[in-house]
Amino acid sequence: MGRPDGQLVEEKVFKDPVHRYIHVRDELIWELIGTREFQRLRRIRQLGTTYVTFHGAEHTRFNHSLGVYEVMRRMVENLEKKMTWDEDERLVCLAAALLHDIGHGPFSHSFEKVFGTDHEDWTRRIITGDTEVNAVLSRMGSRFAERVADVIGKTYENKLIVSLISSQIDADRMDYLLRDAFYTGVSYGNFDMERILRVMRPQEDQAVFKLSGMHAVEDYIMSRYQMYWQVYFHPVTRSAEVILSRILHRARELMRGGYPFRQEPVHFQSLFSETLSIRDYIRLDESLVLYYFQEWEDEEDPILRDLCRRFMNRHLFKYVECDPSKQMLIWPELQELFRKIGLDPSYYLIIDSSSDLPYDFYRPGEKDERLPIHLLMPDGSLSELSRQSDIVEAISGKKRTDHKLYYPRDLLEDQSEYAEEKRRILTLLHAQEGS
Amino acid sequence: MGRPDGQLVEEKVFKDPVHRYIHVRDELIWELIGTREFQRLRRIRQLGTTYVTFHGAEHTRFNHSLGVYEVMRRMVENLEKKMTWDEDERLVCLAAALLHDIGHGPFSHSFEKVFGTDHEDWTRRIITGDTEVNAVLSRMGSRFAERVADVIGKTYENKLIVSLISSQIDADRMDYLLRDAFYTGVSYGNFDMERILRVMRPQEDQAVFKLSGMHAVEDYIMSRYQMYWQVYFHPVTRSAEVILSRILHRARELMRGGYPFRQEPVHFQSLFSETLSIRDYIRLDESLVLYYFQEWEDEEDPILRDLCRRFMNRHLFKYVECDPSKQMLIWPELQELFRKIGLDPSYYLIIDSSSDLPYDFYRPGEKDERLPIHLLMPDGSLSELSRQSDIVEAISGKKRTDHKLYYPRDLLEDQSEYAEEKRRILTLLHAQEGS
Amino acid sequence: MGRPDGQLVEEKVFKDPVHRYIHVRDELIWELIGTREFQRLRRIRQLGTTYVTFHGAEHTRFNHSLGVYEVMRRMVENLEKKMTWDEDERLVCLAAALLHDIGHGPFSHSFEKVFGTDHEDWTRRIITGDTEVNAVLSRMGSRFAERVADVIGKTYENKLIVSLISSQIDADRMDYLLRDAFYTGVSYGNFDMERILRVMRPQEDQAVFKLSGMHAVEDYIMSRYQMYWQVYFHPVTRSAEVILSRILHRARELMRGGYPFRQEPVHFQSLFSETLSIRDYIRLDESLVLYYFQEWEDEEDPILRDLCRRFMNRHLFKYVECDPSKQMLIWPELQELFRKIGLDPSYYLIIDSSSDLPYDFYRPGEKDERLPIHLLMPDGSLSELSRQSDIVEAISGKKRTDHKLYYPRDLLEDQSEYAEEKRRILTLLHAQEGS
Amino acid sequence: MGRPDGQLVEEKVFKDPVHRYIHVRDELIWELIGTREFQRLRRIRQLGTTYVTFHGAEHTRFNHSLGVYEVMRRMVENLEKKMTWDEDERLVCLAAALLHDIGHGPFSHSFEKVFGTDHEDWTRRIITGDTEVNAVLSRMGSRFAERVADVIGKTYENKLIVSLISSQIDADRMDYLLRDAFYTGVSYGNFDMERILRVMRPQEDQAVFKLSGMHAVEDYIMSRYQMYWQVYFHPVTRSAEVILSRILHRARELMRGGYPFRQEPVHFQSLFSETLSIRDYIRLDESLVLYYFQEWEDEEDPILRDLCRRFMNRHLFKYVECDPSKQMLIWPELQELFRKIGLDPSYYLIIDSSSDLPYDFYRPGEKDERLPIHLLMPDGSLSELSRQSDIVEAISGKKRTDHKLYYPRDLLEDQSEYAEEKRRILTLLHAQEGS
Repeated sequence: MGRPDGQLVEEKVFKDPVHRYIHVRDELIWELIGTREFQRLRRIRQLGTTYVTFHGAEHTRFNHSLGVYEVMRRMVENLEKKMTWDEDERLVCLAAALLHDIGHGPFSHSFEKVFGTDHEDWTRRIITGDTEVNAVLSRMGSRFAERVADVIGKTYENKLIVSLISSQIDADRMDYLLRDAFYTGVSYGNFDMERILRVMRPQEDQAVFKLSGMHAVEDYIMSRYQMYWQVYFHPVTRSAEVILSRILHRARELMRGGYPFRQEPVHFQSLFSETLSIRDYIRLDESLVLYYFQEWEDEEDPILRDLCRRFMNRHLFKYVECDPSKQMLIWPELQELFRKIGLDPSYYLIIDSSSDLPYDFYRPGEKDERLPIHLLMPDGSLSELSRQSDIVEAISGKKRTDHKLYYPRDLLEDQSEYAEEKRRILTLLHAQEGS
Repeated sequence: MGRPDGQLVEEKVFKDPVHRYIHVRDELIWELIGTREFQRLRRIRQLGTTYVTFHGAEHTRFNHSLGVYEVMRRMVENLEKKMTWDEDERLVCLAAALLHDIGHGPFSHSFEKVFGTDHEDWTRRIITGDTEVNAVLSRMGSRFAERVADVIGKTYENKLIVSLISSQIDADRMDYLLRDAFYTGVSYGNFDMERILRVMRPQEDQAVFKLSGMHAVEDYIMSRYQMYWQVYFHPVTRSAEVILSRILHRARELMRGGYPFRQEPVHFQSLFSETLSIRDYIRLDESLVLYYFQEWEDEEDPILRDLCRRFMNRHLFKYVECDPSKQMLIWPELQELFRKIGLDPSYYLIIDSSSDLPYDFYRPGEKDERLPIHLLMPDGSLSELSRQSDIVEAISGKKRTDHKLYYPRDLLEDQSEYAEEKRRILTLLHAQEGS
Repeated sequence: MGRPDGQLVEEKVFKDPVHRYIHVRDELIWELIGTREFQRLRRIRQLGTTYVTFHGAEHTRFNHSLGVYEVMRRMVENLEKKMTWDEDERLVCLAAALLHDIGHGPFSHSFEKVFGTDHEDWTRRIITGDTEVNAVLSRMGSRFAERVADVIGKTYENKLIVSLISSQIDADRMDYLLRDAFYTGVSYGNFDMERILRVMRPQEDQAVFKLSGMHAVEDYIMSRYQMYWQVYFHPVTRSAEVILSRILHRARELMRGGYPFRQEPVHFQSLFSETLSIRDYIRLDESLVLYYFQEWEDEEDPILRDLCRRFMNRHLFKYVECDPSKQMLIWPELQELFRKIGLDPSYYLIIDSSSDLPYDFYRPGEKDERLPIHLLMPDGSLSELSRQSDIVEAISGKKRTDHKLYYPRDLLEDQSEYAEEKRRILTLLHAQEGS
Repeated sequence: MGRPDGQLVEEKVFKDPVHRYIHVRDELIWELIGTREFQRLRRIRQLGTTYVTFHGAEHTRFNHSLGVYEVMRRMVENLEKKMTWDEDERLVCLAAALLHDIGHGPFSHSFEKVFGTDHEDWTRRIITGDTEVNAVLSRMGSRFAERVADVIGKTYENKLIVSLISSQIDADRMDYLLRDAFYTGVSYGNFDMERILRVMRPQEDQAVFKLSGMHAVEDYIMSRYQMYWQVYFHPVTRSAEVILSRILHRARELMRGGYPFRQEPVHFQSLFSETLSIRDYIRLDESLVLYYFQEWEDEEDPILRDLCRRFMNRHLFKYVECDPSKQMLIWPELQELFRKIGLDPSYYLIIDSSSDLPYDFYRPGEKDERLPIHLLMPDGSLSELSRQSDIVEAISGKKRTDHKLYYPRDLLEDQSEYAEEKRRILTLLHAQEGS
């Protein structure tokens, strides 16, 4: 279907509820979308366990990845009016946007912590290894796949392109804020993306924003702030995440201990092998994980069984706020009490902490240093966003952290056995909360 | 958390992108949502394979079921201003709305055809059988579950309630049109539901609509018409459905023939047993189906393997329009040619037909007779919708049917072997199309 | 601010609630917007008296004209991918879209009927006469203004351009359906304009639409149909229109009869002069009309005074449906009764008829023949829309007409004087309605 | 149409683009809407001269007043679930919401400054004086009108009701933020009103908000902040306002000086009389103002003529930022230069300052003290918003002020006469701006 210039004979469009239409004009992009590695993203949700809180949030990374591509396509279209670059750079940009999440596994957040996988690493392997994605990219030249991987890995020499896909205001974030707000139904994630794209100007190694568009950028920062605390760190979602993570821990422990599973969890076992192949990694998707969890609802091991039933049927842990300083005082007693009533505290008494830094200016030398957002002033100079915006200044560099203690309240309320211990547990938990 | 009157101490709300909020005030409803049978609906997509065409359509039956409940809740709230009924009837109504899809299995459309399951039958079994849903319903009295099942089965004595959940304009359809339009991103499914609810009036055994709201009803009928042909019968979606159905056929054949699967497909085998238990049925969800399909990508059997790879990686069949009258002439030759080049026509040459009757008035004595929509005239009389509306009259009772012939074009284009036969096949297919 | 190529140094944008942004890149367009004749459109409402029914509909022709320009700009952008034409044609197109309503006066509908003005005629005069608009256009060359006027007048030789601005699916209609739906708040006027523009293809003397976009076009036709009967012909709006028209009639009669107005209505008198100048015409806007109506609330003449008070304070006439065939029978008696109770029937007993032909195919030789909408079939042939679409076929060529009889019910209910006559009047009116 | 209980036989609804529907169930409200004083609000724009910047902002105070009523109706509906009050209080509330702007005149902002009118004072006079509004209110009892006026005047004894209509988060503000965002088309003004209403709780003399809804309240505060600087204080709008205000000044001066107007401006002259009657005040609407301005485009006085032409045809003043400290240095010279080239600086060199305090906590003893927003904590205590919200804390009590200097740049660029002076003026202005 292609033409010598790499353009499709007829533009393809995808109907998209967020950007209305996603336009594909390059054969390269069309073929990347068709690869098995990219299609797999249909089986990995964008927001992990958020659907237990916001039932609308059932969209996948496939959905989001197309969106990031589309935002990038519009960015490039706008930037091309202000600068020139060669056709190759444009395609590197678009491919990187499309593929930036290709290495994500199922419920990445928990999986990575438990099994030590790293989605950024897998993204690179899938792009440069023996995959359909690599085969398509390689048709563009021998170095092309490498360049795409470098953009995603932030080591690409053209820092402007890197910043379009990973900075404090990039195609990835713009898409996910809009998209996650759309699917959850919350009103927080809206900002005027069209305006932000219009006031974007290329400047050596980053994109900057005309001062006249500052308020749209402010609005974007505030959306980000609100989405983190209203959606991404929602305590109920975190409860499901806590249980998920405990399931994985338990399964790992059982596998290591030679526990006789009714069906050998071969797919999980591959995660321990030194040489997990791309082919095996690719098989890991959320259908597979849910398949196993469903099977495990009938396992002998009471902890694995209980946790899987909780996860599948949404019988979540409850939580109390938790002040880490006070916590130390009651922690030993709490753990002891849990053990006494037969609940292993490493599975049933879990602290989860979330923290977010909504915007930061440059702090040289710090790990995780973040490129600040710059405004282009009428006189041509640049000014860091928080110097111009009171609101952004107010939240700039301020890390907010929240600790919660999760536990199965139903088990504490259930029976009369250990009534004394249970009462004491609840008292300690409430003391915690009352702080 | 309950009170003696069955109301929750504090109303619960779900954020919903379509209806903004879903309000739950009754303990009964809250507890039904928490059952394992209802939570399972999170693992069954609302639109089956539609996501291959409209990537936004990843929402599940859980999502939709909450929506139908909410529409019903608003209907009841409106109707209660015009009539009185006892509290029990209200709860029967709401529970029936929430549970109307509880018996759906994964990709129901194809599964039911191949395995002869019937989701309506399973809905009844889940409501009245040994399930968490039944346990919750039974707390309302011994006959309560039965009544809910009767409403869904359309045998309930109060026909007004039946009509609210299954008629040509009911809570189910109103929710799915709005919801499917929202998630696919198409603009067709919108109509003014608020106005329709406001002009609804209870009349003995049905709800009727004040004449002043006729145009909102017209708009609803047109939305339905457009959604069927634009979304539900989209030819690409049907291609995925065709492949899915062929996979199931092949698996059934192999299981019957004693084919040695690498992993025994126990969950599928239960479908053949005479006494498929509720417990086994409940396990069947789309995660499980996709898990198997992924496994089967590596099976020995070339047909099963090929079809599963196609389904998982979206290598779909192409199609040509198909005129059933002409088709008979070329069919024997086409089938013969397919066999010649090594493609079993029962898996690789498939006709799929879709047809829709957007609205119909009453035709007594016909199977599948449909209750017409009635307008309440200013003088108090009733008038059937198509008598008042030119547009509805135009499409009333007109069944539109569409036939398409699906086949794997890639296999015909691939190699040079059988070049002659392949050319002839393409010629025949195009002749078909050109008609 | 201009450049030699006629482009603005920096693109100007207007925030628009319907199209999000309106983009102006050509100096010509920017300067036309700044003329006094165009700015005057801010004082003429887009929907005349519709605001009495839909309070949101307070938008003006200025608002709509910018919208039509923007739709045309997007059309041209799309068409330019498929064809080439010279830069001049593009600017003629855009200017014609922007200026197509420039000749409208206040409450045109009623004014034109009473005073015989013709907005199309005035559009031509403003474009080609001694105006700021003409001065701006003339900078583009001596024939340019003439060409713009010819496009609007449908006599331009390039019929494709004419069809973009006046056909059954043109920039004007697309904007007003979307815009009027937005401001009134009704849900009917929505259709997928983006898709329609994408499937538009230039074909000699008209734009046609790819078959794959047929449903979007259907949706547009249905929107049009619904908007006519739900919004444009709303009976309450027509009541205000009836009163407005009666005020103008009365004022004309009084002016002709030499009635001594408290303030000489000089602006209205100019309408009678043989040589109404552009300058005088331009002054007529809705502020001026409302100023006079407010003054006339205190005039001596009881009819003018009463009608103005009704219009300004929304004390409208009531209506009954009216069957023209029966009407003849009761008309003489009704008029007689009105006269008897002191109400001049030429002001207080008014029949208003509305009729609409939502879509029509070509009927050669008929007055007012309308160019049909053509679909571009996959084989390259054209097919008239109603041949492909059941729904459009159903309403094609069917003129729907509605007659209503307006009268001041309050005056009939008020006092006890003439009780007998009033009762008889109400009886006759209801007889009418009951038909 | 009424019933003994004051309810309408059939609820009336208005289609509203912001709240979808406005529901009227009380005869009182329906009749208030029908009064001439309320209908007059159709001729007074909600946002004054904002339409010159945002062409969509053509909505009127009629439109907004219905919206405030609807928000209040929903507030009351929600509050009634938590508290009881007598029917009378409910109606006082609704009537106050509907009528809170009834005293506004045309372009109030400028008019009040120049002519010393006070819309709050006129609101009281219209409600309690000899008007149709008062006649309708008085049917509810002799004290009823007084009570409505007291609510609006903030002297009503039930402070909870006062706070619903005038506090930092009230029905008035909620409607105007949503409505003005809708009509201008900006994305800033959106917040989740439904959620705010749901978490509202009555507490003695104010409404407070449950902590769980804090983020929706934050979002509201941010919307307010953004709307002020993006829309309400837009520099182009202020330019139109500056000119409008100069026109009124000039007209007043000329009237005082006995200038012979071509048409005696009787309506304006009434503004000077000691005893401006309600009847005369009511006549002042924006149609009348625009009528006069159009007439004055042809007046002899060059300043009045020039300013009116500017206003009517949108030939606005340009502006430079202005630092009040530096300004003193150059001011005398600038004024001198303006006089030299024949421009009276009191009409052609104007400083306009805007300032906003987006949110404030209580500062007892200060003029204009504002009631803070309180959150209802889980333990039942109250906590002031800025103590809980970082973002609100950041902007709390911080007044932001902006000064701009407006002048007619076109006149400085025009001719060659006084070239030297004009150059010097531009230099001084730019010096100003560069600061």
